[in-house]
Amino acid sequence: MEEPMVQFINCFEVPAGREDDFMVVHAEINAFMASQPHAGYLGHRLLKSLTPDAKYRFINFVEWESPEHWAAAHGPDFLAMVSRPDWAFFTSVPALYDVAYEGTP
Amino acid sequence: MEEPMVQFINCFEVPAGREDDFMVVHAEINAFMASQPHAGYLGHRLLKSLTPDAKYRFINFVEWESPEHWAAAHGPDFLAMVSRPDWAFFTSVPALYDVAYEGTP
Repeated sequence: MEEPMVQFINCFEVPAGREDDFMVVHAEINAFMASQPHAGYLGHRLLKSLTPDAKYRFINFVEWESPEHWAAAHGPDFLAMVSRPDWAFFTSVPALYDVAYEGTP
Repeated sequence: MEEPMVQFINCFEVPAGREDDFMVVHAEINAFMASQPHAGYLGHRLLKSLTPDAKYRFINFVEWESPEHWAAAHGPDFLAMVSRPDWAFFTSVPALYDVAYEGTP
């Protein structure tokens, strides 16, 4: 695996049956981010639980060069967008992380 | 990034000040897993939040070839170990995931 500087991880609770709606939100956020300057963005991955009853139906990982790059990409415009009332059907737990340990077979 | 078949993700709530105790637990689990046959294990990464007030102080990712490989590695011996009363200071939210979307700069 490559070694990211920092990972922004967001765990999403999505009600059963709303997965497609969540993917629409995810696509809109992607389109917004792609339309902005986003220096330091290294890539991201959205994971979906194999079973629908997982507490977090989706977990998103975004790799950034630094916490400062992450903060610069999440300004007022971004916050206004993700606060849309019609997106309130899911809740999320976001935080920044770095690697504490890495293991191989 | 390489493309795993399935990811086992575990989000850990660890009380402030117990991070070192958690790392001891993590090391014991690593030692146990290394002592077992674990076909299908592809690697793992433990992430730690940059700030101590994150809901999940640690998030662990383990890549497996399949859900069946994961299940085979988490039998009765493993469950007995992780149920130790002296490890009850943290709680966790585990589930299996696969990739729903991948983005690049």
